[in-house]
Amino acid sequence: MKEYHIAIVGATGAVGNELLRVLERRNFPVASLRPISSARSAGKSVTFGGALREVEELTEHSFDNVELAFFSAGSDVSRQWVPVARENGAVVIDNSSIFRMEPDVPLVIPEINGDDVRQHRGLIANPNCTTAVALMALYPLHRVFQLRRIFAASYQAVSGSGARAIQELKLQTEAALQDRPLSAQVYPHPIAFNLLPRIDALLENGYTKEEMKMQSEGRKIMHLPEFRASVTCVRVPVHRAHSVAVSAQFEKAASVEQAREVLAKAPGLELVDEPQINRYPMPLSVAEKDNCQVGRVRIDCALENGLSFWVCGDQLLKGAALNAVQIAELL
Amino acid sequence: MKEYHIAIVGATGAVGNELLRVLERRNFPVASLRPISSARSAGKSVTFGGALREVEELTEHSFDNVELAFFSAGSDVSRQWVPVARENGAVVIDNSSIFRMEPDVPLVIPEINGDDVRQHRGLIANPNCTTAVALMALYPLHRVFQLRRIFAASYQAVSGSGARAIQELKLQTEAALQDRPLSAQVYPHPIAFNLLPRIDALLENGYTKEEMKMQSEGRKIMHLPEFRASVTCVRVPVHRAHSVAVSAQFEKAASVEQAREVLAKAPGLELVDEPQINRYPMPLSVAEKDNCQVGRVRIDCALENGLSFWVCGDQLLKGAALNAVQIAELL
Repeated sequence: MKEYHIAIVGATGAVGNELLRVLERRNFPVASLRPISSARSAGKSVTFGGALREVEELTEHSFDNVELAFFSAGSDVSRQWVPVARENGAVVIDNSSIFRMEPDVPLVIPEINGDDVRQHRGLIANPNCTTAVALMALYPLHRVFQLRRIFAASYQAVSGSGARAIQELKLQTEAALQDRPLSAQVYPHPIAFNLLPRIDALLENGYTKEEMKMQSEGRKIMHLPEFRASVTCVRVPVHRAHSVAVSAQFEKAASVEQAREVLAKAPGLELVDEPQINRYPMPLSVAEKDNCQVGRVRIDCALENGLSFWVCGDQLLKGAALNAVQIAELL
Repeated sequence: MKEYHIAIVGATGAVGNELLRVLERRNFPVASLRPISSARSAGKSVTFGGALREVEELTEHSFDNVELAFFSAGSDVSRQWVPVARENGAVVIDNSSIFRMEPDVPLVIPEINGDDVRQHRGLIANPNCTTAVALMALYPLHRVFQLRRIFAASYQAVSGSGARAIQELKLQTEAALQDRPLSAQVYPHPIAFNLLPRIDALLENGYTKEEMKMQSEGRKIMHLPEFRASVTCVRVPVHRAHSVAVSAQFEKAASVEQAREVLAKAPGLELVDEPQINRYPMPLSVAEKDNCQVGRVRIDCALENGLSFWVCGDQLLKGAALNAVQIAELL
């Protein structure tokens, strides 16, 4: 089997660390692996394949002989360095949002539109983490019942903001338990025992960028240009795994039994739906798991042909690192 | 001014404690105050008017000479003892859910349907806490634009489950920070750094009782029998104050400016809506405040004549104790 020369840009971040673990766990054919970061983290070490690897600073030579480059260091780094990696002949799988909506960049969730990878020109985008988790349940339902629109609210873990945010939640929580003042650096307000109803920049229509990604990325991934999504995205004091409460309207009526049958068979998804005995998806139970979980499936009481459900997924995995490696496997 | 002989059943609970504070703070005309609890808590003390008061056990004589009785000790206690209090001539303001939907029991939010108090026959019900917080923003909009239906997701604090749940969140959080195992007693799973997408019992339609209260209580309080509400209720690791993300459809189109103007003038509600500078309602900022806060107001992108918004309120106050005392003031 061919093995690949790989670079990971953002190797010391929350997603970068998961990328290393997923590549190991799935026995990805790695010929060489180059962990790369900004100057700030260069010189640190990461482990891969049982050995310590020194993290290199990102330079113009970072992509020499690299065949596959994973980017997970934010939009600014991707904007500047993805073109460099492509010019050097690497195929890039980018976790940032900046190339996702470009017409010639496939935006891929392998379980949904894996075929789109074939049209790549050296760059494939990884979707937004909340969008990925929600679509894992929405798309299989769409294939059978034809999706029209959703109303959704997200409950997003701090790991979506990176390793520093995980640390901030811990420090603030300790301070709160001891009645000490909370210092907020990553977020504008304390996240410990609190909720922040804004993620990403505000748009003119009053939604945030994060909220509108569900619609724009959902349309592209599902090949569904009329799809509409009204979403409220909220940061919650959870370490890992995003959750989404969804009311979805379809062209065709679905029974709960039909919907459950479809969801139970969907790849990458587990149906956990016995709420009467307290079995339902939770962040704690999906954390560090590859599969997303869906439950609380019911006929929506305020929509025609509507279904309501609750879906959770580890957004460092399905929302980021796992999905990126799955894309690489398709290549 | 006439003063009242008052009993508080459940005086040692989370809501009971707030009731004492609200009565003091609003200078309610109290002739005498009798704190009452189950045998388990009897003998404890609570403070009122600067003095310690011993808590009495609930007996058949608890309501002798009582004119006004607040009940906040759960449905079982209300079912058994509210009739006793009424027979003794007390007017009861009950915080449990069991009498709310009875046709001859007014269910009242003073800012919305205060006039309904007049029809009481010795018993007035206090609404569900999440419903109360959401209606504080929905009703003023309804008066102008005529509400049809909502899609909503709640983010409910542990204080809604009482004082023991607040303690459980603290203990579990400490254990989690120290990597010790978490013990869950109030809830079936850990709530620290987690989410529980089930509150109250499951109904046949797959919604929980808590979720359907928004529709049933909303219809009764707003006098709006066709109102539909599809809600997902979720417990979150927050100490105090419930939040709700709402997409609402109206008969008439509203602009964001019109909606904001209506909300800014609504009694008991503050408009906090400058998300671009990170001013929005949060549990931490409404905790221990009488007023609810609403923000993130925008035209809903998936509904005709729709508005989306985010509303927070201290459910021990507006969702429970404050509302109960406001009802008493109407009497």
